[in-house]
Amino acid sequence: MKKICYSPIGIVHSEFKEKINVPIQSVFSNKKGIIEIYPEFSGGLKDLDGFSHIFLIYHFHLSKGFTLKVKPFLDDVERGIFSTRAPKRPNNIGLSILSIERIENNMVYVSDIDIIDNTPVLDIKPYVPDFDQRQNVKDGWFSNKIDRKEYLSDNRFSF
Amino acid sequence: MKKICYSPIGIVHSEFKEKINVPIQSVFSNKKGIIEIYPEFSGGLKDLDGFSHIFLIYHFHLSKGFTLKVKPFLDDVERGIFSTRAPKRPNNIGLSILSIERIENNMVYVSDIDIIDNTPVLDIKPYVPDFDQRQNVKDGWFSNKIDRKEYLSDNRFSF
Repeated sequence: MKKICYSPIGIVHSEFKEKINVPIQSVFSNKKGIIEIYPEFSGGLKDLDGFSHIFLIYHFHLSKGFTLKVKPFLDDVERGIFSTRAPKRPNNIGLSILSIERIENNMVYVSDIDIIDNTPVLDIKPYVPDFDQRQNVKDGWFSNKIDRKEYLSDNRFSF
Repeated sequence: MKKICYSPIGIVHSEFKEKINVPIQSVFSNKKGIIEIYPEFSGGLKDLDGFSHIFLIYHFHLSKGFTLKVKPFLDDVERGIFSTRAPKRPNNIGLSILSIERIENNMVYVSDIDIIDNTPVLDIKPYVPDFDQRQNVKDGWFSNKIDRKEYLSDNRFSF
């Protein structure tokens, strides 16, 4: 099977230096971070300052290997990896919706980072409610699992 | 800069065979499609049938090259690529939110495909409203640009 290869467009700066005690989703984070876009790509940030939220697509650079069934952070039952947002996946691609605080030159300042420092960035897309919000959504095994404002990672994907 | 390489986990089957006349987002599509997950990864689909929607992450395999400024499908003004969902990007990664109709073995049937036939699939993640819906969103240059139920691609990214 032919491989598909990408070159990072930037890098994440955050206070999270290791895999544990990181907010498991941006909705559980109030920590600021910076998405540094490499200068050769910074022209692509034009107009992004009109948006309040982005999709950030990145590489879980600390994840090695994967299993097809995992016990995700919010459950103690084994779930199929594609029904989870767990970081050890067949392709270790991360997806976060982040709130833009401001953009200065090639730096995108965000207010709800859930990503480890030095994570390579693959893409930024604008979050557009007309495209990205759905009604009548069934959320599978997550149903009734989310009842607090903060969930942090433990060590289950650290090995 | 070190490259990051992935192997596809599956392939898209759809009626769209070329880059023009494809719905530009899944919200503008009522066409069915199939996400075929290769058998060695199909165990990862467990529990996904409890969800109504997925994020599909894939490779825009027909896109070659990129520019940092583009005139996106919904506009005639040049915009920074990262403020658009255009398919010719520094890393040609696509993101669609799709509605699951049913799952049979390694086949995920969806009802709103906006992806070209034979597109390589990189990842599936569950769409979780608690994680993925935001209030008070500013949608930048898209504001007031979306006023119909159907938008199809033209040839602007075909070269």
